Amino acid sequence: MAKVLTSKDENYAQWYNDLVLKSGLAENSAVRGCMVIKPYGYAIWEMMKDELDRMFKATGHENAYFPLFIPKSFFSREAAHVEGFAKECAVVTHYRLKIDEEGKGIVVDPEAKLEEELIIRPTSETIIWNTYRNWIQSYRDLPILVNQWANVVRWEMRTRLFLRTAEFLWQEGHTAHATRQEAEEETMQMVRIYAEFAEKFLAIPVITGYKTESEKFAGAIDTLTIEALMQDGKALQAGTSHFLGQNFAKAFDVQFTTREGKLDHVWATSWGMTTRMIGALVMAHSDNHGLVLPPKVAPIQVVIVPIYKGTEEFPAISATANRIKEELSALGISVKFDDRDTQKPGWKFAEYELKGVPVRLALGPRDIEKGTVELARRDTLEKKILPQEGIAGYIQSLLEEIQVNIYQKALHFRDQHTFEVDTWDEMIDVLENRGGYALAHWDGTEASEERIRETKATIRCIPLEGNKEPGKCIVTGKPSPQRVVIAKSY
Amino acid sequence: MAKVLTSKDENYAQWYNDLVLKSGLAENSAVRGCMVIKPYGYAIWEMMKDELDRMFKATGHENAYFPLFIPKSFFSREAAHVEGFAKECAVVTHYRLKIDEEGKGIVVDPEAKLEEELIIRPTSETIIWNTYRNWIQSYRDLPILVNQWANVVRWEMRTRLFLRTAEFLWQEGHTAHATRQEAEEETMQMVRIYAEFAEKFLAIPVITGYKTESEKFAGAIDTLTIEALMQDGKALQAGTSHFLGQNFAKAFDVQFTTREGKLDHVWATSWGMTTRMIGALVMAHSDNHGLVLPPKVAPIQVVIVPIYKGTEEFPAISATANRIKEELSALGISVKFDDRDTQKPGWKFAEYELKGVPVRLALGPRDIEKGTVELARRDTLEKKILPQEGIAGYIQSLLEEIQVNIYQKALHFRDQHTFEVDTWDEMIDVLENRGGYALAHWDGTEASEERIRETKATIRCIPLEGNKEPGKCIVTGKPSPQRVVIAKSY
Repeated sequence: MAKVLTSKDENYAQWYNDLVLKSGLAENSAVRGCMVIKPYGYAIWEMMKDELDRMFKATGHENAYFPLFIPKSFFSREAAHVEGFAKECAVVTHYRLKIDEEGKGIVVDPEAKLEEELIIRPTSETIIWNTYRNWIQSYRDLPILVNQWANVVRWEMRTRLFLRTAEFLWQEGHTAHATRQEAEEETMQMVRIYAEFAEKFLAIPVITGYKTESEKFAGAIDTLTIEALMQDGKALQAGTSHFLGQNFAKAFDVQFTTREGKLDHVWATSWGMTTRMIGALVMAHSDNHGLVLPPKVAPIQVVIVPIYKGTEEFPAISATANRIKEELSALGISVKFDDRDTQKPGWKFAEYELKGVPVRLALGPRDIEKGTVELARRDTLEKKILPQEGIAGYIQSLLEEIQVNIYQKALHFRDQHTFEVDTWDEMIDVLENRGGYALAHWDGTEASEERIRETKATIRCIPLEGNKEPGKCIVTGKPSPQRVVIAKSY
Repeated sequence: MAKVLTSKDENYAQWYNDLVLKSGLAENSAVRGCMVIKPYGYAIWEMMKDELDRMFKATGHENAYFPLFIPKSFFSREAAHVEGFAKECAVVTHYRLKIDEEGKGIVVDPEAKLEEELIIRPTSETIIWNTYRNWIQSYRDLPILVNQWANVVRWEMRTRLFLRTAEFLWQEGHTAHATRQEAEEETMQMVRIYAEFAEKFLAIPVITGYKTESEKFAGAIDTLTIEALMQDGKALQAGTSHFLGQNFAKAFDVQFTTREGKLDHVWATSWGMTTRMIGALVMAHSDNHGLVLPPKVAPIQVVIVPIYKGTEEFPAISATANRIKEELSALGISVKFDDRDTQKPGWKFAEYELKGVPVRLALGPRDIEKGTVELARRDTLEKKILPQEGIAGYIQSLLEEIQVNIYQKALHFRDQHTFEVDTWDEMIDVLENRGGYALAHWDGTEASEERIRETKATIRCIPLEGNKEPGKCIVTGKPSPQRVVIAKSY
């Protein structure tokens, strides 16, 4: 099994693709750019969904569902928005097929042409704000704190499993507020929730900051982002939260009577996180043996593998395994006892390493004699012989330790790949030779940003936290209020 | 508020539509035939989803996700399937918009035409069986027990909120088996799960049975259905489970090596339940005051309304309300304390009746003095004064009682509207004058079924349970092995 994956150092992109396929997370489908999320990958998505949904509801949000289709004309209402999304969308033009009269099989019925084409939603601001117009009359109807779990389509030309697919799954929050301040606070609250989710749940350290003007969401006043560093030194945008100002309210004529009796346009935010995060999870932690899943997002936290030769050895091992399984289950730990006799223990060991199961227990005849069990940690690949007595409690603490360790390891990697650079050449050195984040001063102009973009790196964000000392732009030498984060990215 | 809804007897269809809109479940969108599921409606769907998902997982099923798009050619592979679904589907023909050079705004870019059109999935058998081909080589790869939660599109010409919409949400199970028997058992297991879900969770009694040849799923060998009776005497198909034989395995060339080393096609099932069930829930139980929700599917199970005049009365009421709220929450009961001062108690009473909240508590100054609380049941509209002491435990039992009572009421209604008929005229009398189910003998021929269909009623199913005595067909007088269920339907 050692040669199942291409080595990470040899070819990172190939390693990633192999890993997603071979660990059973996802595969390409017959439809160009669309993936099939397989049960193991979907189980991870379900855990992510449940946790995010819990966080959204704890902050007063409710779920709703809006149409998959958006009338073409809706797009044109917000000028920046159509610019950003019209280029890559799936267009429905007809609503019926028919049997071809000339024997060509099934063809599109030309008589079933839509009067106005429908776009498969690439994001739902337009259809939602068209709906909110009827929901909002007065300040009493505000705020509206709605989230949607949905599929969206962006017709990407170059796709990669999870990271960039034509169809993907996501959540999109769309909130409406009576004041600018409240909407700005919501935008900040949601990016903070994303950061907490990434760090505490996925064990991925992130930098939170503002996107530049040219990188922000099409139709937003401000975009807040969380950026994560992958093991190849590239950044990945992991979640965004947009302050939309009154742009969509103006485009869709959504006004309300204020507490003072005046008429004003409603203030908006939107924020989203996608199945792309599964790709980030894979790339942030995994190794040449396979996935490394933080326990909080592992569909199976503990696997028990029996090791025996004759069938007469099996009953005692099975009884012990089932007892340990019950003890673990009682603590809320998800555990699988793999008692298949169609596969050998060595095969199973490699399989669960590939699938990133955090803790593996092996039980053989000598363990039954001695009351012991062999425990292997996926994150460090360490093995230990431990007494069966008290093993469940030990594993409970160990899972917490593993969660922390995986985060610390990623944080250490990021620290090792974050460089304050003061000259153009230093920046190039980081981008070309070291990989990771170059923290550099920038004068805030689009011209300087464009120069940076020519290196194929981008300004990932203007960070909220960290060193706030002013300095001089690495492009122009003009004054800069603080360093920005520059990196190549996914 | 009494005049908010059209009376059920006056105009049932209008009553239903008013109720869905005014209770905040859903509304029509700007896209023809597509609805917006509002937060209150979506909360009901989430409860349904959670319960069904739990039942699926308890029987060994896993979730996965397959593409929204299906290549047009896939449809043609299974002859009956394309016949059933090609007439009403959304077709994607292009993948880009552009700014029109003649100033017409945004137009479809003619250069971005797809080589092969994509159909928005109306159901996913074809794309899934095309995928399963790569997952299945040997009997060791079987069974595959996969479910998908997704949106689907069927281009209905006449739509009604929840009951018939162009886009709807559903789950679709797609399983693959090594033997015919195992697939047939799965088909039966899943329809039994639907029946249990409908009866125990939604409090809707159902009849389980086989669809006739002409009513079965396009591509199935057998379709099992659960049928529910609405208060206007019409039936509603509430969930179906299909035994697909080897039809899709043959269409997509999915073969496997059996335990005996032979090559065989895989056996299949599929089964689905949709957001239509929210419509069934509304129509089965509600009244002229609004929704009547069984406690198990009520987003809010208990609402507490404070009744006070001066603001000095409020603190004591609020303290008591919050104490009761905590006691109820501790028992896992969902409770809302509506302390808004922008609405009067009478308005709130009507609002929560409209929304079908099972139990309402009202607390006024005299209740504080006397240690009492007024409790109103939504299902019976009864009111009682009760001591605050022990109220949480009382409500816990009451919610169970209400759940049973709503089911019994629906069962009683069905019993009152189920008639064994032995002649054509008796059947017509049931269909035209009484409403409900006509249980009649049928000779099993399509010709007789067609005659019945001319009355605008259909054979809803050939029931699994009940009277199995043979008799004579009401159309032809020929022998019939058992009675079938005939009704008008949604």
